[in-house]
Amino acid sequence: MGDWQEITGGVTAARGYKAAGITAGLKPSGLPDLALILSDVDAIAAGVFTTSQVKAACVDFCRQRLQAKHSIRAILCNAGQANAATGNQGVRDAEESAELLAKELGISTDAILLASTGVIGQRIKMDALSSGIPKLVAALSETGSSAASGAIITTDLVTKSIALETTIGDRPVRIGGIAKGSGMIHPNMATMLAFVTCDAAVSPTLWQQMLTRAADRSFNSITVDGDTSTNDSLIALANGQSRTPAIIEMGAEAEKLEAMLTAVCQHLAKAIARDGEGATCLIEVQVTGAHDEISARQIAKTIAGSSLVKSAIFGRDPNWGRIAAAAGRAGIPFEEANLQIKLGDFLMLENGQPLPFDRAAASAYLKQAATGAYLKDDTVLISVSVGNGHGTGKAWGCDLSYDYVKINAEYTT
Amino acid sequence: MGDWQEITGGVTAARGYKAAGITAGLKPSGLPDLALILSDVDAIAAGVFTTSQVKAACVDFCRQRLQAKHSIRAILCNAGQANAATGNQGVRDAEESAELLAKELGISTDAILLASTGVIGQRIKMDALSSGIPKLVAALSETGSSAASGAIITTDLVTKSIALETTIGDRPVRIGGIAKGSGMIHPNMATMLAFVTCDAAVSPTLWQQMLTRAADRSFNSITVDGDTSTNDSLIALANGQSRTPAIIEMGAEAEKLEAMLTAVCQHLAKAIARDGEGATCLIEVQVTGAHDEISARQIAKTIAGSSLVKSAIFGRDPNWGRIAAAAGRAGIPFEEANLQIKLGDFLMLENGQPLPFDRAAASAYLKQAATGAYLKDDTVLISVSVGNGHGTGKAWGCDLSYDYVKINAEYTT
Repeated sequence: MGDWQEITGGVTAARGYKAAGITAGLKPSGLPDLALILSDVDAIAAGVFTTSQVKAACVDFCRQRLQAKHSIRAILCNAGQANAATGNQGVRDAEESAELLAKELGISTDAILLASTGVIGQRIKMDALSSGIPKLVAALSETGSSAASGAIITTDLVTKSIALETTIGDRPVRIGGIAKGSGMIHPNMATMLAFVTCDAAVSPTLWQQMLTRAADRSFNSITVDGDTSTNDSLIALANGQSRTPAIIEMGAEAEKLEAMLTAVCQHLAKAIARDGEGATCLIEVQVTGAHDEISARQIAKTIAGSSLVKSAIFGRDPNWGRIAAAAGRAGIPFEEANLQIKLGDFLMLENGQPLPFDRAAASAYLKQAATGAYLKDDTVLISVSVGNGHGTGKAWGCDLSYDYVKINAEYTT
Repeated sequence: MGDWQEITGGVTAARGYKAAGITAGLKPSGLPDLALILSDVDAIAAGVFTTSQVKAACVDFCRQRLQAKHSIRAILCNAGQANAATGNQGVRDAEESAELLAKELGISTDAILLASTGVIGQRIKMDALSSGIPKLVAALSETGSSAASGAIITTDLVTKSIALETTIGDRPVRIGGIAKGSGMIHPNMATMLAFVTCDAAVSPTLWQQMLTRAADRSFNSITVDGDTSTNDSLIALANGQSRTPAIIEMGAEAEKLEAMLTAVCQHLAKAIARDGEGATCLIEVQVTGAHDEISARQIAKTIAGSSLVKSAIFGRDPNWGRIAAAAGRAGIPFEEANLQIKLGDFLMLENGQPLPFDRAAASAYLKQAATGAYLKDDTVLISVSVGNGHGTGKAWGCDLSYDYVKINAEYTT
C-alpha cells in the first residue's frame, strides 16, 4: 500500500465539498435518482469520457465546458434516463438542467458539469428534474456523500465509495470518490460513472494528466462484458482547500498525489468489477515481463475479458490452457517459450511447458473466492509472465455466470 | 448469389481428390478422430493460420512447409489432442506424424500439411496415430468427404460441408470444403479448422492472396465468444485437374474463382457461427456507408461480438440501444447523426434519432429465428448504416444463452 490511510466521507471527505442525493421521480422504481456534488470555491476540473462514437448529451456538454475553462463548482448527475441518442432535444435538455441548477445555486451555468445514466433513447424527465433541483440543493451537506452515491446507482447491488488521506508539506490532503457501474444490466442501462474530489491545489494540465494515467490504470483496466457505454464519465475536482502549496509540475509531491489518486480510482474500479452482473468473484490479472506497461496491460485485459477464462473461473476449473490462449491472442508479441502462468500460488506453466499441479487444491482455491463477491474482498489472482521485460500491468474482471445471461436476456424493454 | 451452383461431394467434389476419416482411438469418446485429404497430383497450397502467440506444433509445421514450397499432396488432421503448449516433444510428434503418413502413401514428407484439434497441453497419442495411419490410407475414397468431415469435429453438433461448381472457359471448375468449430466448448477444446479443395490451376501467389481475402470476409468475420484458438487453420489446395487454363493474374476468371472461393468460406464460416455453443440463432450484421470495407467489417464484428447484443437477441428483445452502443465503441469514427439501425425490416434509428416501431412484431421477428439454429437457416439480420461512404462489410455471430455458460463452466478438466 502507499503512503496514505483510508478515511471516511467519500466525496465529502476532502475539505470544501458538499453533496446530496434525493428521489426526484426520474426512476420508475422510486429510488434516489438525482445527485449533486458542490465545491465551496472554484475547483480545477479534469475529465475522462467514453470513447464511443455514440455519446450522451452530457458527455458532449462536459467536453465542451472543459475545453473552454477548467474551473468548476458543481457536478449534477441524474439516473433513470441516459439522454443518449436523443438528438437536439437531448442537447437542449442538458443545457436546461445546468441552467436550472445554476439559478438555484446562484452560480454561473458554465461552472456546472453533467452526468446521466439510464435508458438509451430516453430524454430526461425534465418536470421531475425541475421540481427536484430546489430539494436537491436544500439537501446539500458536508456528510452528503453516501446520499449522493446512492442516487447515482442503477442496478448496482452496492454503492461504491472511498476516501484516502496523505500528508503534503505537513498538511493533510484528501481524495475521495464515489462510483456506479456493474456492467450493463438493464437494456441500455449501462454506464460507469465516477466522481472524485480532492482538496489539493494542482495546475489544470497536471491534474488532467494525472487523471488520464490513473484512469488507464483503473477504470480502463476493468472489464465486465467488454461493452463501453454511451455515457461513461470520470470527473475529478481539485479545489485547493487543503491550503497546501500549489503543485504545478511533476516531482515528489505530485507523484504522491497521483499515487493516491490512482489508488482511489483503482478501489472504485475494482468495486465495479466485483459488482459485475452475476459475478461470484473478482478476478485480478497481473502481467509481468512485457516490453512496457501498455503491452502488459493489454495482455492482462485480454485475459480478464475472455469469456472462456471467465466461465472456467465460474466453473472453478483451474484451466490454464484458456489463460494461455487468451494471452496469445492479445496482439502483443512474446516468446511462447517464456510463458509462465500461475493461478493463486499454483504454478501451471513454466517456460511454455505444462507442469503437474494439485488440481483439487487449485479448484479449492477458486471455490473459496466464490459466492457473493460484492460482499467481500476475495479475489482470484492470475499471474502471467511473458518474458524478461520491465513492463508490468494489471486488469480486473469478474466471472461469467448464468446470472449474467439471465439478467441481460430476461429483462425486456 | 454468384455465378455458380451447389453440388454434392464436399472436399472430394473437385476432380482428383480423395478423403478418409476413421476412428484411431485418439478421442476418449471412441468417435472418429483421424482425417486425411489427398490430391492425386501435386496441388498448390495456401494457408491462413491463428494469429495467437501461443501456437500448436502443427501450425508452425505448416507455416514452415508453405514458406519452403507450395506444392502439397496431403492434409492429415487429428482430433482429441491439440498438441499445443507441448514444447519440443510436440514438434517431434508432428514431424513423426508426417513421416508415418509419407511412408504409407509413398510420397515425400514435405508434401504433407498437418492440423490438430483437442486439449491444449496434451501430446498426440502417437501409438494410436501410428496404428491408425495404414487404416486411414486404406479408407481413402473419392466419396470420402463426409467421413473426413466427421473425423475433424470435436463438440460440433453437426458436420460442416459445401461444394460449388462454376464454368471457366467452358469447363467445370469446382471448389469444396469441410470445417469444424463451434466456439470453445470443452476446456481448451477450441479451434476452427477448414480445408478447401479446388481443381482449378492457379499460381501460388494468387491463390494465397485469394485465400487471405476470402478468410477476412468469412472466418475472420465470425465470432462465437471472441476467443482465438492456438490451432486455428484454413488450408486450401488447387490441383489443376479441371484442365482449365492456369490463372496467373487477376482478371475476369480470377475474380470468378475468388468469388466462389469466398462463397465456400462464407458458407462454412456461417455454419460454424450457427453451431456456436448454446446458440439458438445465427446473427448476420451488415454495415454500409463506412469509409472502406475494413471499417465496415470492424463495426459489424463489434456488434456481432457484443455480449449485450447477443444476450438481448437470446431474450428476443429488439434492443437497438445496445446495437448503437456497440457500433459506437468499434473504434471507427462516424457521425452519430448519420446512424441508421434496422432489425430485420424494422427501422429503429434514423439520422441518429429513435423512431417508433412495432415492438411486439419486432420481438416476434426475433422469436421465429430461435430454437435449434444449427438445424435450419433462420437468421437474425441487423443492418446498420453509418454514413455515405462506399464501404460495406458483414459479420456473423450467434446469441448468448444459458447453455453457453453451462457448457463452458460445468465441464471440468
